[in-house]
Amino acid sequence: MDSDKPAVANSSTRPSSYVKPSAAGLINYALPPADLESDLVIVFDTESGSVPKDKKTPVMVEDSFRVLLSVLVNAGFSFKVRVHKPGSVFIFVKASDAVVSFASYRSQIKDWLFGIRTSAPVVQDKLDDNFSTAERLRLVYERLTNSQKDHGLGITPGQGDWVFVKSIFALHDPKFNVAWIERWSTKWVLDDDELDIIKNSFGEKIALYFAFLQYYFTRLLFPTVLGLLAFFFLPPYSPIFAIISCLWCCVFIESWKRREIELAVKWGVKGCSDLDTHRAAFKGESEREDPITGDLVRYYPPWKRVLKEFTAIPTALTAGLILIGIQAVVFVIEIFLSEIYDGPLKQYLVFLPTALLAALVPALTAFYNIIATGMTEWENHVTERTYDTSMTQKMFVLNFLTSYMGLFLTSYVYLPFGHLIAPNMDIISATMEHFIGEMASAKKFTINKFRLKQQYIYFTATAQLINFFVETLLPYIQRRAFKEAKKLQEKVTGTCEEVFKDKEEEASFLMRVRTEADFPDYVVGDDYREMIVQFGYLSLFSTVWPLAPLFSFINNWVELRGDAVKICLDTKRPIPSKGETIGPWLDNLTFLTWLGSMTTASLVSMYRASATEPDCSYLVSARPWVLLSAVLLSEHAYFVARYLIRLIYDALDSTVVQKHHRLQYLNRQQTLNRSLTEGEPIEALEHAEMVVTETKRDELRTSIADAVATLQLSLVKSEAAKKED
Amino acid sequence: MDSDKPAVANSSTRPSSYVKPSAAGLINYALPPADLESDLVIVFDTESGSVPKDKKTPVMVEDSFRVLLSVLVNAGFSFKVRVHKPGSVFIFVKASDAVVSFASYRSQIKDWLFGIRTSAPVVQDKLDDNFSTAERLRLVYERLTNSQKDHGLGITPGQGDWVFVKSIFALHDPKFNVAWIERWSTKWVLDDDELDIIKNSFGEKIALYFAFLQYYFTRLLFPTVLGLLAFFFLPPYSPIFAIISCLWCCVFIESWKRREIELAVKWGVKGCSDLDTHRAAFKGESEREDPITGDLVRYYPPWKRVLKEFTAIPTALTAGLILIGIQAVVFVIEIFLSEIYDGPLKQYLVFLPTALLAALVPALTAFYNIIATGMTEWENHVTERTYDTSMTQKMFVLNFLTSYMGLFLTSYVYLPFGHLIAPNMDIISATMEHFIGEMASAKKFTINKFRLKQQYIYFTATAQLINFFVETLLPYIQRRAFKEAKKLQEKVTGTCEEVFKDKEEEASFLMRVRTEADFPDYVVGDDYREMIVQFGYLSLFSTVWPLAPLFSFINNWVELRGDAVKICLDTKRPIPSKGETIGPWLDNLTFLTWLGSMTTASLVSMYRASATEPDCSYLVSARPWVLLSAVLLSEHAYFVARYLIRLIYDALDSTVVQKHHRLQYLNRQQTLNRSLTEGEPIEALEHAEMVVTETKRDELRTSIADAVATLQLSLVKSEAAKKED
Repeated sequence: MDSDKPAVANSSTRPSSYVKPSAAGLINYALPPADLESDLVIVFDTESGSVPKDKKTPVMVEDSFRVLLSVLVNAGFSFKVRVHKPGSVFIFVKASDAVVSFASYRSQIKDWLFGIRTSAPVVQDKLDDNFSTAERLRLVYERLTNSQKDHGLGITPGQGDWVFVKSIFALHDPKFNVAWIERWSTKWVLDDDELDIIKNSFGEKIALYFAFLQYYFTRLLFPTVLGLLAFFFLPPYSPIFAIISCLWCCVFIESWKRREIELAVKWGVKGCSDLDTHRAAFKGESEREDPITGDLVRYYPPWKRVLKEFTAIPTALTAGLILIGIQAVVFVIEIFLSEIYDGPLKQYLVFLPTALLAALVPALTAFYNIIATGMTEWENHVTERTYDTSMTQKMFVLNFLTSYMGLFLTSYVYLPFGHLIAPNMDIISATMEHFIGEMASAKKFTINKFRLKQQYIYFTATAQLINFFVETLLPYIQRRAFKEAKKLQEKVTGTCEEVFKDKEEEASFLMRVRTEADFPDYVVGDDYREMIVQFGYLSLFSTVWPLAPLFSFINNWVELRGDAVKICLDTKRPIPSKGETIGPWLDNLTFLTWLGSMTTASLVSMYRASATEPDCSYLVSARPWVLLSAVLLSEHAYFVARYLIRLIYDALDSTVVQKHHRLQYLNRQQTLNRSLTEGEPIEALEHAEMVVTETKRDELRTSIADAVATLQLSLVKSEAAKKED
Repeated sequence: MDSDKPAVANSSTRPSSYVKPSAAGLINYALPPADLESDLVIVFDTESGSVPKDKKTPVMVEDSFRVLLSVLVNAGFSFKVRVHKPGSVFIFVKASDAVVSFASYRSQIKDWLFGIRTSAPVVQDKLDDNFSTAERLRLVYERLTNSQKDHGLGITPGQGDWVFVKSIFALHDPKFNVAWIERWSTKWVLDDDELDIIKNSFGEKIALYFAFLQYYFTRLLFPTVLGLLAFFFLPPYSPIFAIISCLWCCVFIESWKRREIELAVKWGVKGCSDLDTHRAAFKGESEREDPITGDLVRYYPPWKRVLKEFTAIPTALTAGLILIGIQAVVFVIEIFLSEIYDGPLKQYLVFLPTALLAALVPALTAFYNIIATGMTEWENHVTERTYDTSMTQKMFVLNFLTSYMGLFLTSYVYLPFGHLIAPNMDIISATMEHFIGEMASAKKFTINKFRLKQQYIYFTATAQLINFFVETLLPYIQRRAFKEAKKLQEKVTGTCEEVFKDKEEEASFLMRVRTEADFPDYVVGDDYREMIVQFGYLSLFSTVWPLAPLFSFINNWVELRGDAVKICLDTKRPIPSKGETIGPWLDNLTFLTWLGSMTTASLVSMYRASATEPDCSYLVSARPWVLLSAVLLSEHAYFVARYLIRLIYDALDSTVVQKHHRLQYLNRQQTLNRSLTEGEPIEALEHAEMVVTETKRDELRTSIADAVATLQLSLVKSEAAKKED
């Protein structure tokens, strides 16, 4: 918001001033000189694109460049061009206020027609203070990138005529970012105003993520306290703790659904999911009229897509089997090394399984990611939303397997069936001996009964710390290191600034733009994934170690701030977009809670006896029908609980949603009044009603008298009948 | 529709003509003389009502009567009064066209404001041919009975000022009914036009029931054929048959949901559930503004209602336990008598259990019904819809128990644990001996292994036949018999016609009105209940006897016609009302399918071995963990199947629903265009966009040249860099 106020930028006395050095020490926060004020930056890179080298002539490049500029100019954009690096330039694009208000008006009409807006569109000649940066950025971005059908210029990076357009991105707002980080690093609790601020700067989709994280964080307080109580006062694998935890998961999900709707209503995006624009990559088989708007649109038969989507099932199964295979092999190696092997190099070899997994899992994930992306592309989704959902669900399957498989194997294979492995260990020992040579005094295999807890603590406490480091600090360090390396190189060739002789007042700003252009995009899905996986650890296994919610609680306090820092320091500024629901993640949360009702029951029934009675003769209660009954019972108790909780939430109205309906109602009434000749037909009809009674009044008096006579006749007979009795 | 055409009724040459004697042989179908043409009949009965006898004076009765008539007259209704029976009169009420079109207009406005109508309301001076009888009846009935808040006269039978108003009912349309029955008794397949005809005569709610029954009937063809194949070619308890049956249930429910929405859209009632009027019996704790319309309405805190609703759980549990107790006792007696007892009176005593159940179950049901009604009243629902839902769900619990408990006891208690009963039979024998005296040669107890099948065949084939008889033919015979008795009595006292000296031309019509006034109301819920219970037999137990769908299929063909006959001959004409969904019944269907996935799996895993292998040593496979695993597996397979089926249905758009959205869209666009100064703001803004580019054209030319220069600079450096490499 602030960056658009010309008062700040136009002050020519400080053309390249820095914002508050305290926070800016971490990053270059040069403000743009007045000349280079812009909404978006287009990277025109002659090196990128799929045009064969022999066909790419300077003339062709220049033509393409001229076409791009004239398209921009004709649409009312102004631009400035600066060198990015050899073969690549930045186009600083700025939309006039007229362009923005026209786009805004068009967007309002669409919202109104689809029932998202409750009030009729208003034409704004001047953009007022309520007009947020996010809204402006979204409109300008959509004007540039949407297809012509969707009232855009159709500039889709890397596609069609725009092979040389590498990317279109927005620059960070240094003042906002610094203020944001400083505010959040001192505030303990984030209120709704903070969410509104994020919404106004980064759009509803990003704000919804922070709203979810914040909501999840505050609601974690309950299981945290419960976990502490359970840890100190309840026996291990306590059914009470398990039941309350499961209920908490249910309540959390249902209450978040309510919260999500309320936020969408408050932000005026309720129903926006129905209003998705076509994906540029969507290929229609034919053209046909849109069944709703009547416009001619590309069409692809949905049943074909459904068939394609079903191929995801065997693919996921295959990937799952491979992953289970890898995990199982690593698992066996790990057990062998840690609990049997006692030969040479043991102190180094124990790290081998971890190293193997650390190498294989990301490789497999990357490979699966490629396949999943390919398949989702092939499914040919019409909108970004369905594409994202399909992709999210595919990735969730893999995330589920990589995150929880280890714990599942320990709970349901290693501990219950470990004693069956022992005899077969000889074969493994023999095989290993064959390769390594003589082994020094192989220990006898014993089951490590603390393995489940150890593993769980690792996942919920240690791994979260590592993950935070990898996610937030590593990219920064990497970039620093890379920068140093680059500097070394540039000492030989000269920096861009030197080579292209940046103007002195622009130099530090351009340096910043060059840095931000190299930032990766912010993918909000990755952050959701992390939180959903964490929720899964709690819902599936928290009975193993009741302190897990505490660590998640602490982690999420940091995560909230860490994600803010990540957006500010490590990624491009996200392009704002609308969003009313966390969508597929909600399904995943529900799935994890449901599964949790079963795993928790099974864990409690399997391990409670051995964990509470010190002289228990067995590790795992081995009566399968008890286990199955517990699972069946718990699952159905979960269904009943969920049904009742939903019932309660449905019965209790949300005032925010009611307010929304009220506005819709008022709006309809208003337009109805306007569109009809006011009140006239009603009066005419009411008059007609009266006329009938007036003309017949005399006649009616007679007929009432007749009627009363009839009544009296019946009454007399009634009396007569009574007397007879 | 036809009854409103004055041409037929005004022909004074046949004032009391009968409609087609062929079908009318069953019932008095006298057409009303022109004088008594009416929309509704109000029964004003001085004997009814809760006024103490000593307070009821003739003056008071007459005053109340006058008030009622003047209320009617002031609202534009005309009336005629005739004697009903001693102490009671009929008021034939007819609304003028002006009243109806005004009510119609008001109803349209409400629909439009709540988004049910897609087009703006239109004032109709003349009611055209498209205006259905059902619509007219609904509007007139609502005008009479709705509260003044809901634009009605507030005439609520038996309540407040209207203690002497016993009922308000509509007369049957003889011509329509005769044509309907004749058409349906000759048609094999009923098409959508038939549903539209029902809708136009009895309203959407009744039409929806017939639509459901017809849809269910046609979809039953698949399991019928499957069942025949299974019966002849598959072994008993075939898993293939079980799996396909379960899948069919899922597909049926999901496809009905689609069908239901399409019908609602076609009939223009999509969304009408949101627009319920307040129940007259609803008691507000306070008054407050309606959060949506802003009107002042009575208010009752929803959380209090939720708390009250939760008390239904212990009540249902108690009722369930009592019923299980009764059934268990009867069960034991039955087994004792049929399989052990061999003493005197055996041939009569075997009927004792059936007689006991036949006496106890209806008594308990009636008692439970009273409690359930009381509780639902106490829950203080705002709308009829939520009241009905709450009541339906309470009754479903009992229906479930009475319908399926016998089969459940046989499947899961008698057959698996029967051998445990045998030793304890001695105690029962001893007790019985104590009461009856010496018993002749008590047989040794053996389990009747065909009991489940025998019972199931009874429920799905025999009982349906009995039920059809009880439901359709019995009331008619009862009434006939009652009429004869009355005639005998009237030979002494004289008939109403004679006592009150009905005019000759009115006599036979009034006789018909007197008969119809005594008819019970048509309760569509009872018919739904019957169908849902039947569906339950198929979904829960069809693996026991694959011919069950065949019998249901045949039954439903008859049921469709039988229900039509029932409405025409045995009940009052139903007052039309809107309905867009079968609502709570849909939840019950889903529940039965889900439970079916479990019972079917358990039955197959328990009884398949003994039913297929003739020399099987056991009756029931007794490994609990196999049974539990089968149940768990089957249930989750059901969840997956349901998820996938829903996915497919969601992906495939419904053209009917799309058309609805299209109309909504067009309507919004139209009103938008009307409410804005047409096109002007858009043109102004587009002009502004162009102005920007015009004034800057020269300037821009220069800047493009500069930009190209910058690009070339970067390209040169790029070339240079390449050469260096």
